[in-house]
Amino acid sequence: MVIDASRGAVLPLTAAYCQRAGAALIACASDLDSEGIDAARALSAQVPVVQATNLSIGHWLQNRLTRSAASIMRRLPDPPVASVLERHTAAKRDRPSASARALAATWETASGVGEVTEVVSYRAGLAVSEHTLDLTFPCETVSLRHDVRDLGAAVFGALAAADWAHDAPVGFYLINDLFDRLLVEESP
Amino acid sequence: MVIDASRGAVLPLTAAYCQRAGAALIACASDLDSEGIDAARALSAQVPVVQATNLSIGHWLQNRLTRSAASIMRRLPDPPVASVLERHTAAKRDRPSASARALAATWETASGVGEVTEVVSYRAGLAVSEHTLDLTFPCETVSLRHDVRDLGAAVFGALAAADWAHDAPVGFYLINDLFDRLLVEESP
Amino acid sequence: MVIDASRGAVLPLTAAYCQRAGAALIACASDLDSEGIDAARALSAQVPVVQATNLSIGHWLQNRLTRSAASIMRRLPDPPVASVLERHTAAKRDRPSASARALAATWETASGVGEVTEVVSYRAGLAVSEHTLDLTFPCETVSLRHDVRDLGAAVFGALAAADWAHDAPVGFYLINDLFDRLLVEESP
Amino acid sequence: MVIDASRGAVLPLTAAYCQRAGAALIACASDLDSEGIDAARALSAQVPVVQATNLSIGHWLQNRLTRSAASIMRRLPDPPVASVLERHTAAKRDRPSASARALAATWETASGVGEVTEVVSYRAGLAVSEHTLDLTFPCETVSLRHDVRDLGAAVFGALAAADWAHDAPVGFYLINDLFDRLLVEESP
Repeated sequence: MVIDASRGAVLPLTAAYCQRAGAALIACASDLDSEGIDAARALSAQVPVVQATNLSIGHWLQNRLTRSAASIMRRLPDPPVASVLERHTAAKRDRPSASARALAATWETASGVGEVTEVVSYRAGLAVSEHTLDLTFPCETVSLRHDVRDLGAAVFGALAAADWAHDAPVGFYLINDLFDRLLVEESP
Repeated sequence: MVIDASRGAVLPLTAAYCQRAGAALIACASDLDSEGIDAARALSAQVPVVQATNLSIGHWLQNRLTRSAASIMRRLPDPPVASVLERHTAAKRDRPSASARALAATWETASGVGEVTEVVSYRAGLAVSEHTLDLTFPCETVSLRHDVRDLGAAVFGALAAADWAHDAPVGFYLINDLFDRLLVEESP
Repeated sequence: MVIDASRGAVLPLTAAYCQRAGAALIACASDLDSEGIDAARALSAQVPVVQATNLSIGHWLQNRLTRSAASIMRRLPDPPVASVLERHTAAKRDRPSASARALAATWETASGVGEVTEVVSYRAGLAVSEHTLDLTFPCETVSLRHDVRDLGAAVFGALAAADWAHDAPVGFYLINDLFDRLLVEESP
Repeated sequence: MVIDASRGAVLPLTAAYCQRAGAALIACASDLDSEGIDAARALSAQVPVVQATNLSIGHWLQNRLTRSAASIMRRLPDPPVASVLERHTAAKRDRPSASARALAATWETASGVGEVTEVVSYRAGLAVSEHTLDLTFPCETVSLRHDVRDLGAAVFGALAAADWAHDAPVGFYLINDLFDRLLVEESP
């Protein structure tokens, strides 16, 4: 079992190692390029591979609740306007974050009521990050906020993924689908 | 069709009027006493009666998402700690608000992982109110916030309830169940 | 006494009227062009003219506290990083707001510790606006936030300016200097 | 030089040690009882003693800006209503925190416009603490927030106090007065 939390460019080397060793892989880099994705996909023909751009349970929960909200709100005659604000420390260069784009995409796909035209990035403050989805109604707002204070937020997801992948069927899995499976679908 | 948004003590008079007129009733006062509730229940044997402590769609959405979050989180080996903070202007006397207590009860019922021991009221700032459910994990938090800026937030719910009650079967209905019916359950 | 809160393009007409009538002018439009500023300046040779881009007392207070904070922090061996986040409704087109730029300039001028490189605009939520100055230290932050909920926030400043201009010496005045004079400098 | 950041009950022992060794003392415990304060006061006849309930520079800055705001606002015909909200993790037992009480006292002393009747404590979320002073005007609010994420926030103050006490005159000093002296009064 290999958990690769280094940079995306390294993944082909890691995948080659997993292939030789017959080890399952949890691929955590958020900056995978196409070469890395191809290597992970190819490896998944032999061992279980989990792709986990964001291992935090809070990220997954925020996206699930966003999906729930969107699927309800699409039935309103006048659905709310959705917008996303994210904050990272000044050290982060790219805007918006991959997680902010994922959150906007989750809303757009599930609501079918048009684009999230406002996805704004603020580079300030202390580690690690905040992501907020704001739903604006005529006289009120509902907000879904995820605030990460420590990279330890990834530990539960990393261990849950490793535990699961240990004797999982060969194949390629996304971490959010894995959380769905572990925490929702298999519920009695 | 009568929409009673006055004080709870008035409801028996309103119910008597509805009975004489054969009019459906939307009962909106948040301070109904047992006499008022009895009057509404008795009336509901003759006409449709909707009890709507909080008519805002945001309140309903926040409670639905809270229930979703709770039912998922109960399966975690180490569920988050839930707490509620509410704010109203200094003019509001009672603490905590009925909506804050409802939010805590929604979490407790759906999660089964123990009490929301912290429900705090802050009396400050401008109209109208904020209610936040905070879920605290070891290194991250997820928050669900509802911010009402104008009593116009009640308009959609009042009209939706009135429209529905107009030709509804005789009976007693809660507004949140009505929203569930209108926005979720009947979806194609 | 004329209070002109219409669009900047109108100011030359208003100034001509004030000149004919001998009336003092409170010029409130935030989008004055050079023609408007010239007209106001020219008028101020004859009557008192107050330029008030933002009439709210909160805006003035936030800028005063920002200046205080900046003048202290410049003496720290390791001054905090300053950043500004502003929010207006989606209807506002320009980014960043004039008030956000003014706030950043206030910090930069008074601190002398370099640029506010991060001034971010978020177009979402309900009326009217929020402006936050965040000061980030290694393990803590201090924030100064101004939240306007209603254009009535301009009333006190408009009346104070009108009351003062009524028998003021001929000349050109900025509203913030006027607040300084009324609320700070003349204090016993 | 001794920096005592243990519990208040220990201070008499620490003071006795400092007396024998002739060492200056930075007394940081926030729960000093009268016996501890007496011991610190007695010691200050022989060596420099700095009492530092809260060593963070942000706490000091927030109190200074609060004092500035209060001294201005007292001249308004209709001063804002002041209120304090503080948050610490669920592990903190006492309510409100000493820092919240200090902040309210700073406002009350400097404004002379009446009590801060609302000082609310919320026990939730992650380490360490937030303290917010809210000033509510008719249509707007101005807020001063201090957010501590790590106890490292005390380091600068501890080192500055130790450096200063090293060759300071014998006597008893409060940390906030020391910050005033180091960062404000001695400015050129």
